[in-house]
Amino acid sequence: MTEARQSIRVGLLGCGTVGGGVIRLIERNRESITARVGAPVEVAHVLVRDASRERVSECKPEWVTTDPEVVFGDDSVDVYVEVMGGEEPAKSYVERAMSLGRGVVSANKYLLALHGPALLQKAADNNVDLAFEASVGGGIPVIRTLREALTSDSVDSVHAILNGTCNYILTRMRNEGIAFEPILKDAQNLGYAEAEPSLDVDGHDAAQKLVVLSMLAFGASVNVEDVHVEGIRDVDDIDFAFAERFGLTIKHLAIGHERGDKIELRVHPALISKESVLGNVNDVLNGAYIQGRALGPCLIVGRGAGEMPTAVSVVSDLVDVARGKISGRPGLATKVIRPVPRALVPMSEVETKYYLRFEVADESGVLGMITGALGDEGVSISQVMQEGRGANGESVPVLIITHPAAQGAIDRALAKISQSGSMKKAPRLIRIEDL
Amino acid sequence: MTEARQSIRVGLLGCGTVGGGVIRLIERNRESITARVGAPVEVAHVLVRDASRERVSECKPEWVTTDPEVVFGDDSVDVYVEVMGGEEPAKSYVERAMSLGRGVVSANKYLLALHGPALLQKAADNNVDLAFEASVGGGIPVIRTLREALTSDSVDSVHAILNGTCNYILTRMRNEGIAFEPILKDAQNLGYAEAEPSLDVDGHDAAQKLVVLSMLAFGASVNVEDVHVEGIRDVDDIDFAFAERFGLTIKHLAIGHERGDKIELRVHPALISKESVLGNVNDVLNGAYIQGRALGPCLIVGRGAGEMPTAVSVVSDLVDVARGKISGRPGLATKVIRPVPRALVPMSEVETKYYLRFEVADESGVLGMITGALGDEGVSISQVMQEGRGANGESVPVLIITHPAAQGAIDRALAKISQSGSMKKAPRLIRIEDL
Repeated sequence: MTEARQSIRVGLLGCGTVGGGVIRLIERNRESITARVGAPVEVAHVLVRDASRERVSECKPEWVTTDPEVVFGDDSVDVYVEVMGGEEPAKSYVERAMSLGRGVVSANKYLLALHGPALLQKAADNNVDLAFEASVGGGIPVIRTLREALTSDSVDSVHAILNGTCNYILTRMRNEGIAFEPILKDAQNLGYAEAEPSLDVDGHDAAQKLVVLSMLAFGASVNVEDVHVEGIRDVDDIDFAFAERFGLTIKHLAIGHERGDKIELRVHPALISKESVLGNVNDVLNGAYIQGRALGPCLIVGRGAGEMPTAVSVVSDLVDVARGKISGRPGLATKVIRPVPRALVPMSEVETKYYLRFEVADESGVLGMITGALGDEGVSISQVMQEGRGANGESVPVLIITHPAAQGAIDRALAKISQSGSMKKAPRLIRIEDL
Repeated sequence: MTEARQSIRVGLLGCGTVGGGVIRLIERNRESITARVGAPVEVAHVLVRDASRERVSECKPEWVTTDPEVVFGDDSVDVYVEVMGGEEPAKSYVERAMSLGRGVVSANKYLLALHGPALLQKAADNNVDLAFEASVGGGIPVIRTLREALTSDSVDSVHAILNGTCNYILTRMRNEGIAFEPILKDAQNLGYAEAEPSLDVDGHDAAQKLVVLSMLAFGASVNVEDVHVEGIRDVDDIDFAFAERFGLTIKHLAIGHERGDKIELRVHPALISKESVLGNVNDVLNGAYIQGRALGPCLIVGRGAGEMPTAVSVVSDLVDVARGKISGRPGLATKVIRPVPRALVPMSEVETKYYLRFEVADESGVLGMITGALGDEGVSISQVMQEGRGANGESVPVLIITHPAAQGAIDRALAKISQSGSMKKAPRLIRIEDL
């Protein structure tokens, strides 16, 4: 089946910042890519919406077209690279490419989170590869690492910082002691956050990426709406100061756990040791801490976004898919990924340690009421810290670190505590992860 | 050239802890390995020195032989996996395998550091693969990441913690404020350090691994004896306390830099920010911080040694080599790695910032003499810290942090300072790396 090939021809779908980076890397690294693939890799077509927009200088005008029929009608194309983003027309294009028996590289986390299992099935049915390293963690090889682990190991858990905007905001909150809102505004001015920041700061972006990682880590096909998601809007800057006293810091984590017949998936702010490696992944960096059964812990850190890091991942995938094509046996690496629907552990049954902060009236008996309510639900307390004494009638903070307990038990205890007249504010809860 | 294959047959050379792990993983992950490779991977022979030694339960007695002719005389073997370690007979076996047109996986850093470029040439000449992920960093995919980067990016620098024993000792020195010697003894009792610890604590192990990484990162063929190497025996526990005040901590680093027509390679203790990610890679963990031109920073952390983590890397390589064999076009991934001799920047020209500690007589004019000697050599000072006042005639520490300066200038200044009668001890120098 192997034939001597002139070249591997690429149909690029989209040419925004990442697409431009891909063209640049293909042109600049011609020699090493040719050596690695065993044939030159060349751009055949670049499908865009607006042909008049300026492109990177390496993009030849004759490649550019707005007509999908030109791009998909060319039988000489071997691989399609989808860097458009969004659901449609990306999904139709990817499906069409695979139906034509062509491999696909996609950098589209949204597409993969929504339709990953179906697209992987379609790839398997057509004996083609579907590679998507760039869809999660930009330039860091997290999908590659999980895919390797999948071959000869199994993954116990993943703890990951997957959203650079959240990490940037939390890092500045910690370092500067400033609240969420002014830093978000600043991040928007600096271009680190979108004008409509909800996708990032409310955790949805991280949840989509977690769903993509779960296909590989846990062989799981999961609806992104079923993942428990909390963003960082409610993180209070004073919690950073309190966390510091316990040797902890706050990160926005996407967490996956193998739990027997179920898996646990959740996205929320979490307290982790400030001396942990993940606790020191700061600013816009992303990081994924993978616990493999045989491998043990493995942490990968790098730029989670940006033109060139993401383009490096796309080109790595392109080289792999091209090599599969050249070998005459494409699709093998993709067929290994066979996500099946898996049940999620209900949040009420998820067990972690908790940091609880209560703003209470400075009255006798309040601490006893709180610890009593927790005790009634079987929640055992590891540490209590009560701050000084407020002036008459003022509130004082009470901090509690619990031993591991189910979310359901904590929720019931907090409901009971909130009903008492002694709370000045709703209690604040942050889960603690041992890393 | 592609043919329908019954299976990929493996000749395992050596069956110590890593070899046992490899057999275990191959047996336990039969299904996923088969899916990934496109054919089952099975052990054909296990070459050992002592057939009577007990093996892992997955190792079938009929595989085991002490006769290399049985293992190399079997034409049905597709891939040899060398997990013996040491120079000979490993080198002869690897060469023989490649001469026979078979791919090789090696976990042998010593072999690769000494003969990597020649072995890679032999692999290219015979159109076979030579994979060696497990030779550096145990289970962490540092070679894989560099190999990917090599295809579509170039590496500017590598800063890596490559020796678990050094990292364990330094971590305990920092945390417990104890000196090197008692912790080394303890580490030996716990099995974290060898009875003859020189290979680890004097930096030679890290230097060998750096030479292997340099083949990939900088395309460099380097003699390991030409690399500047310092171990950790001279690290003083009081330097951890002083470092802390500057927000720094001490790690044993292997460092490589692209420097125009030369490269810079050095292995020594270094001060780095205690809030850097690498600064929090503790205990026996390894970590490699790679700075790619397009990729930006990428850090990989994990267990650098141990039966199962190393075996995971070996099996990942085995799967890759098997896929190359199955495709009918083996050797492509290996041919890309073409190390050539490259000149090293002489240590006297290497520029870093320095931490300098002087134990001086508590006399007036000493600080002026020190700063004067540094100034005469063009070394500019960033911070000075002089500790209290000693009792009559007692020594007091003077700490100096410099701006970047060439090692030659520092050496000349320190020689002049040492000649003065005011030094109670030889000055202590630790390089500072911005990470």
